[in-house]
Amino acid sequence: GSPAAKKAQLELSYKARAELPETSPMASCLLRMMEEKNSNLCVSADVTESAELLRLAEELGPLICVLKTHVDILQDFTQDVADALGQLAHRHRFLIFEDRKFADIGNTVKLQYEGGLYRISSWSHIINAHAVPGPGVVKGLSAVGRPLDRGCLLIAQMSSAGSLAKGDYTESVVRMAEEHSDFVFGFICGGKVSSKPQFVHMTPGVQMHSRGDGLGQQYSTPSEVIGKKGSDVIIVGRGILTAPDRVKAAGDYRKAAWEAYQNRLSSPCQ
Amino acid sequence: GSPAAKKAQLELSYKARAELPETSPMASCLLRMMEEKNSNLCVSADVTESAELLRLAEELGPLICVLKTHVDILQDFTQDVADALGQLAHRHRFLIFEDRKFADIGNTVKLQYEGGLYRISSWSHIINAHAVPGPGVVKGLSAVGRPLDRGCLLIAQMSSAGSLAKGDYTESVVRMAEEHSDFVFGFICGGKVSSKPQFVHMTPGVQMHSRGDGLGQQYSTPSEVIGKKGSDVIIVGRGILTAPDRVKAAGDYRKAAWEAYQNRLSSPCQ
Repeated sequence: GSPAAKKAQLELSYKARAELPETSPMASCLLRMMEEKNSNLCVSADVTESAELLRLAEELGPLICVLKTHVDILQDFTQDVADALGQLAHRHRFLIFEDRKFADIGNTVKLQYEGGLYRISSWSHIINAHAVPGPGVVKGLSAVGRPLDRGCLLIAQMSSAGSLAKGDYTESVVRMAEEHSDFVFGFICGGKVSSKPQFVHMTPGVQMHSRGDGLGQQYSTPSEVIGKKGSDVIIVGRGILTAPDRVKAAGDYRKAAWEAYQNRLSSPCQ
Repeated sequence: GSPAAKKAQLELSYKARAELPETSPMASCLLRMMEEKNSNLCVSADVTESAELLRLAEELGPLICVLKTHVDILQDFTQDVADALGQLAHRHRFLIFEDRKFADIGNTVKLQYEGGLYRISSWSHIINAHAVPGPGVVKGLSAVGRPLDRGCLLIAQMSSAGSLAKGDYTESVVRMAEEHSDFVFGFICGGKVSSKPQFVHMTPGVQMHSRGDGLGQQYSTPSEVIGKKGSDVIIVGRGILTAPDRVKAAGDYRKAAWEAYQNRLSSPCQ
């Protein structure tokens, strides 16, 4: 569009984007929740015990918009854990995002999403997928998730060193999202990859202090990610989980990311 | 290398490749088993009940070199199922390959490979990974798998329509394998992607008759895959699982793929 249109688009608030006709129900729900809670913080609950996962959800729930899980690293997952998590999500108003990174052909991801011991589609509001298998992965997931009003993020970029999700690959992911926007409502990415305001951008690898983990993870700060790179939601794992006071740390990240968003909104020249 | 060297290399038998000093213990074990059993057939056991998985392993075990599993689609997986599968693998001499397609950062895949309800590293000889996160995914998996003498395949190409695993992406995967050949012993691919004889090439999407599944899967025949495209192992799922007589169908695929290998060996101009 014209420079003026582009500027207007970049300055839209989460709330305004939630109301756009092209915004999907899942993106609308998330964007409204962000505005309501003044939080664009997603916590990555990478813990190996269910009790700790539920404690995190209870303690941090009021501060976050999304709780990102890896249930396949829990030693003691049961459907009761999923039920309890769902109740906490309802009480504290956050969405559950199982970071499964589906990456198989359509027929297989359908079964992985719906079945197995985890039955992810029955409790996770949001899932994500790699686009490397081609559009079949989205079609397979969508066949399960759309009837349940779920939503999917495509992984457009990764925070790990030497990732192949860049350049043409990333462009193909964005096109795939645009072609399946009835189920794909956004991206996992390092910064904004699509100018369409109906898509939500979520960025992992965020920490205020550390720079890496020795296994290729690389970190950015909340203001870099939300302010400079134009993402919408920061995903923070070890920066909060390894803090002496997790609630205080989550509060600090929430504040930093929300201020970066407000500064972006009020900036005259995005 | 020179055309003569290239020709010599292409004509090496599985047995000769198993003996090369640069061939990893996992690749040697697999190549020897293939030669011993006259089988370069991997069956993809995409079933949702453990009893059926074990029945397949029992019935088809003598005919195959590898059994590919998706334990995360089983409704009723327990560690007893993994134990029983391990005993069948030992008795019928095949390797277990959990087709998990790990695709996260190193720190996460370590936990996914070792832990959770599936404890994949404790029973699966072979796993695979997408290279999209960068080398950290291999480093993380290797930290768990190497001490257990496991091996990993990298996904260089996929059989699904519109896959992004092509061109530069595939070349990056091959380089990543070469740089981590103490743990990565081969590829999931449509055909030969590396001329190094220590790598094993395994190709999914093989059927004698069908052309697709409506969710993007595309099929090739055993002779195309082994003869023309230079892969080593065919991976067959629905072509065998949906056959009225699975043992007969597996026998037919085994014969077709083995003959294609023998024709390749005896061909004067590869």
